Amino acid sequence: MSNMPGKEFNIADSGATKGTHSPTIAVPDITHHASNTTVDAPLLRNIASPADVKALPANQLMQLCREIRATLLNYGHRHGGHIGSNLGMVEATVALHRVFDSPRDRIVFDVSHQSYVHKMLTGRALAYLEPEHFSEVTGFTNPDESEHDQFVLGHTGTSISLTCGIAKTRNAEVASNGSSAIGNVVAVIGDGSLSSGVAFEGLNNAAEQGGNLIIIFNDNEMSIAGDFGGMYGPLARLRASGGTAQPNIFNAFGLDYRYVEAGNDVDALVAAFEEVRDTDHPVVVHIHTLKGAGYEGETDAISATHQQLQHTTATDEAEGITATANVLHDEPWHSDHCNLSDHNPHEGQCEASHWQNPDASLGKPEDPRKHYGKMAMAALEPRFAAEPGLVVISPATPGSNGITHDFRERAGSHYVDTGITEAHAVAFAAGIARAGGTPVVATTASFFQRAYDQFFQEMSLNRSRVTVLDFLGGLSGSDNTHSGAYDLAMFANIPQVTMLVPTSGRDFLDDLAWATLPADTAGAPVGSVVIRVPGEGVLAAERNPELLPITGTHNADAIRSERTLEGMLAWRVNQSGSQAAILGLGNTYPLAERAAAALAESHGITATVIDPRQCTSLDTDVLESLRERHSLIITLEDGQLEGGWGEKVTAYYANHWQHSNGSNKVDKPHNPRVLNFGATKEFTDRVPLSELNKRYGLTVDAIADAVTRCF
Amino acid sequence: MSNMPGKEFNIADSGATKGTHSPTIAVPDITHHASNTTVDAPLLRNIASPADVKALPANQLMQLCREIRATLLNYGHRHGGHIGSNLGMVEATVALHRVFDSPRDRIVFDVSHQSYVHKMLTGRALAYLEPEHFSEVTGFTNPDESEHDQFVLGHTGTSISLTCGIAKTRNAEVASNGSSAIGNVVAVIGDGSLSSGVAFEGLNNAAEQGGNLIIIFNDNEMSIAGDFGGMYGPLARLRASGGTAQPNIFNAFGLDYRYVEAGNDVDALVAAFEEVRDTDHPVVVHIHTLKGAGYEGETDAISATHQQLQHTTATDEAEGITATANVLHDEPWHSDHCNLSDHNPHEGQCEASHWQNPDASLGKPEDPRKHYGKMAMAALEPRFAAEPGLVVISPATPGSNGITHDFRERAGSHYVDTGITEAHAVAFAAGIARAGGTPVVATTASFFQRAYDQFFQEMSLNRSRVTVLDFLGGLSGSDNTHSGAYDLAMFANIPQVTMLVPTSGRDFLDDLAWATLPADTAGAPVGSVVIRVPGEGVLAAERNPELLPITGTHNADAIRSERTLEGMLAWRVNQSGSQAAILGLGNTYPLAERAAAALAESHGITATVIDPRQCTSLDTDVLESLRERHSLIITLEDGQLEGGWGEKVTAYYANHWQHSNGSNKVDKPHNPRVLNFGATKEFTDRVPLSELNKRYGLTVDAIADAVTRCF
Repeated sequence: MSNMPGKEFNIADSGATKGTHSPTIAVPDITHHASNTTVDAPLLRNIASPADVKALPANQLMQLCREIRATLLNYGHRHGGHIGSNLGMVEATVALHRVFDSPRDRIVFDVSHQSYVHKMLTGRALAYLEPEHFSEVTGFTNPDESEHDQFVLGHTGTSISLTCGIAKTRNAEVASNGSSAIGNVVAVIGDGSLSSGVAFEGLNNAAEQGGNLIIIFNDNEMSIAGDFGGMYGPLARLRASGGTAQPNIFNAFGLDYRYVEAGNDVDALVAAFEEVRDTDHPVVVHIHTLKGAGYEGETDAISATHQQLQHTTATDEAEGITATANVLHDEPWHSDHCNLSDHNPHEGQCEASHWQNPDASLGKPEDPRKHYGKMAMAALEPRFAAEPGLVVISPATPGSNGITHDFRERAGSHYVDTGITEAHAVAFAAGIARAGGTPVVATTASFFQRAYDQFFQEMSLNRSRVTVLDFLGGLSGSDNTHSGAYDLAMFANIPQVTMLVPTSGRDFLDDLAWATLPADTAGAPVGSVVIRVPGEGVLAAERNPELLPITGTHNADAIRSERTLEGMLAWRVNQSGSQAAILGLGNTYPLAERAAAALAESHGITATVIDPRQCTSLDTDVLESLRERHSLIITLEDGQLEGGWGEKVTAYYANHWQHSNGSNKVDKPHNPRVLNFGATKEFTDRVPLSELNKRYGLTVDAIADAVTRCF
Repeated sequence: MSNMPGKEFNIADSGATKGTHSPTIAVPDITHHASNTTVDAPLLRNIASPADVKALPANQLMQLCREIRATLLNYGHRHGGHIGSNLGMVEATVALHRVFDSPRDRIVFDVSHQSYVHKMLTGRALAYLEPEHFSEVTGFTNPDESEHDQFVLGHTGTSISLTCGIAKTRNAEVASNGSSAIGNVVAVIGDGSLSSGVAFEGLNNAAEQGGNLIIIFNDNEMSIAGDFGGMYGPLARLRASGGTAQPNIFNAFGLDYRYVEAGNDVDALVAAFEEVRDTDHPVVVHIHTLKGAGYEGETDAISATHQQLQHTTATDEAEGITATANVLHDEPWHSDHCNLSDHNPHEGQCEASHWQNPDASLGKPEDPRKHYGKMAMAALEPRFAAEPGLVVISPATPGSNGITHDFRERAGSHYVDTGITEAHAVAFAAGIARAGGTPVVATTASFFQRAYDQFFQEMSLNRSRVTVLDFLGGLSGSDNTHSGAYDLAMFANIPQVTMLVPTSGRDFLDDLAWATLPADTAGAPVGSVVIRVPGEGVLAAERNPELLPITGTHNADAIRSERTLEGMLAWRVNQSGSQAAILGLGNTYPLAERAAAALAESHGITATVIDPRQCTSLDTDVLESLRERHSLIITLEDGQLEGGWGEKVTAYYANHWQHSNGSNKVDKPHNPRVLNFGATKEFTDRVPLSELNKRYGLTVDAIADAVTRCF
């Protein structure tokens, strides 16, 4: 959708007329720049639960919204987060808690980015009002935090299915007992999230099921790519018609439908929700909201654009809103804190690292995803002119992975944003490969889980020459919904996949060059190649060669001379030693060098140090060569041990036991022991990487200790 | 969709008027009952490639269709297969090859069940005409078989995405070079397949992309559940209006649209396809076909129903066609050969075992899926009255998994068919669990790959009390798109999942009872439980106790006395011995007993024999107890070793090495060796199970040999 050159406009081109604020948007009366000021929010501070929202006089709702908006802006400015989508949902969330009776009525926020206001109204306002409490709530809904939260959600599109399940159980209880503890069931889903397949599956099942189910479709137009295609053109015409135009995609799924143009007018929303409360059948309430509504400075333009909606064409409308979006994105906490980034219109999915690290855009060095992502794009770009079939595909997550707006503009049709559609993206890539093109699919490890079946079927089974750039693979301080600790167990156990795990920018580019060799080039891969984009461990070592005490800066000679399958799969022995061999996969490779250096210093042991460079096959030549002089093999990986890589090394020696002299006596030097270091099978939530490394023994001390115990 | 009691009609109720054949359907002039007769098909026999279809005089096309239909019927009767969907696509496929120029024009058949006619017209007619050649082609498209086949496909819904990729590359080549070797790009997708999320993702991306792309929507109405919900009601109205009614779901995705009511009239189809050939933008051609068209005996009713379409209400229409479908399903090779089985309206996904074994419905004993599936349903059914929230969910695959039509009728709202929507099904189940209900989701292991992300996020991370019945897990003679060899690597490496692997019907029921214990029951699981439904190895042993020489028939005392998490996770030591311990997981457990018996007889070794009963955690008490008297541990599993179970046992001993006397000397009896038996990481295609077992050493001889080499 962002692959459309010429479709973006600055505010001057948008046709937006500077005018007065829309009377319906509760514009805050303080500025968020006053970052040292505590927000004055007397109404909000007195909201301990939704009952307090219900108890307010109706004429104070707008003031409450104003306070919430001010609180969000202050919070966003100081802490970061998905402020834009929450700003747009202020009035709707107040109206939800005014009309519905949570937790008896169940509200499920899709992907739960837009749940900050909900949290404020359900006893957690202080966590947004007072800096010392900012870290007390997570960025997602969480049942452990509140009885008003239904699920921990960080991936898009499942809210309709989840609410179908809740409603199904309520229906069954009512049918059986005449009553249920569950009242209305409400899904809140944004237009960006609606591009994911599971959301359509949910829509198609909702009407089928019947019974009370309310789907609030929060349409902030951030998914508009233009008026020409996909569902967003018809959606724009639907809005322009005040909800009357056909085709209406919700009707097409058999669903009842209401439209609320004034999606930031709390009174209009209260009225609309009251109408559907206790409905006896599924109904979609399409509310037209303004992402970032109330953002100081751009408010005039926003309001103007908003007001124009009813009398502009869909085209103008799209342009006007895109302009507003661009302006909003100039503010750092509107853009990259959700990794959906600069100018990317989808707000549905967020990646975790920034959520963890809201200061990243405020002067910290570039993170590994952006760093290596930009590097990869810079390597591919010069090839575009000669290789028409070379295409970078990003399912709605370019910016955080270094696929910058400028790159996308220059790439033109060599870049495709498929929306939040990992399954489509991978099948699409398989199609490109089948036609002789060279697809590169890039997103975050945990989002790739959505394409698992396409990796198996369309990609691997068909030996499609697809290159996968796996970002945020391995351990990180991410939240539990975005952890990359499981990427290797996912990719590397699929037959016919080659997964490369480069340990430097140089290797990364070399891997990318090989994976994307034009078809029929000598030595080109015969099937798909997954490249795990290096993470913090590798980037830190590249920035500080002292972290690589053995190899220092990477040696040009160490780079593969030949790009052949055999060459790419060969493990690299960077130091030959004896007694112990340390195999450091990917991000743990610098640790392998440091541990070896420590062993040399403290124990006089010169360990062999190996960079396996890939994790889908064992280099049995290297493994066999280690038998002679090594009694201990140590594998390091920064992901889950179960289903991971090190256990394959362990199993190799166990299943290729060498008997000396034909007897069954154990001949120790020929059958080295293997120790595996890596992550426990568990979910972790915003645990700093350094703490995870300690927990899993991925430290120099832990490795040295283990070696010491063995000798 | 099948969860609607009272919505099915026999032919007498359908209102279908017996009448003459529709003049547009090429009814075969021979009967398929003449199963010893070679089909007389002079035109078809002379079709060596699509060029021969183009060379035929127009007035011979209908005769060609007649011959193809006769050939399909004869083939289906003798060999089995997806005959119904192919019968409906005879004319459309002839028209496709009449109008388009494959392989320059690329045709992708979704899930590729309906590609038999395509195969006949692309040089492979003999494989359908002559019994001795029947096994020469696979049931799916396959580029290794023909340049006219684009992909190996056995899962639904990806054809639109795949063709988007092919078209994208063509577009790029044309833009760059002014030409491309690729012409028109055509996706052929059925109405059943359209319920899967990835198909919607594809639709939403097709218009966005632009350029030539033709989507043939083969609407045989087999997904109709009624006129009230989901997309099928609006689709029925769309058909009834001759393609003019709104909402039109394809328009809602921004796509151009054509309607062909006479979807079994080859001339009408040729004309329609000629109109869209070389289109410069994506267009959907919605063709209304009759699944099973020409099936002898029911043809009258079929034709009558078909003719009625333009002047009946959507309701009548749905009923009429459902009636026809039911009649068709009475013929064994119309029903269960595609595991979508009796009365299930979806034809999109097929499971492999029956395709392998077309005689299954002709008198062979019930396969394990039906056997254990029925057993599970029989155990759940009596609970329905008291447990309103107990729900069985099948994403479009009930019949082949023993969830019979009769059961579904009786289950009423306790059974939900979600369509071909695994992702929705699992999120839906998580919603049910959140509301306090007890969901049981049942389908085939390879289809569950589509819900991998929902297993991670909505199910496991949220500790949703979902029970997953994993059918066809482990090794089987399935084709490569439906193999269950990877299920354990998928499920068992997800944190917080408990995966049970029962080794008898009794254990299976016990596992199911525990997994579905009502919430808040003492000992109930705190999160999700995956139960791998026993396969052939277990069923054979249950039928023949001699295959269990140690335990014989299962001993009542061996069944868990307490249903607690600890109790469920405890491994069961069925024979205590020394020297060697054999751990047989799931379907390999009977092999473990037989190997132990052979060792006793031939080597005088009494091996310890263990049934681990689950594969998500190690019973360290048992593992530690083995150190004392065992120097060899053998793990058996009937799935992929990499990422599998046995390697976790190996890694356990490697990482819990016992040093004797505080030194680092290896003290062999305390550190047993582990040998892992299981499958190589590879795709296998219709290799008989016995051959796979031999290949992977899962035989008594191979195990005995390995043990002998160790002592």
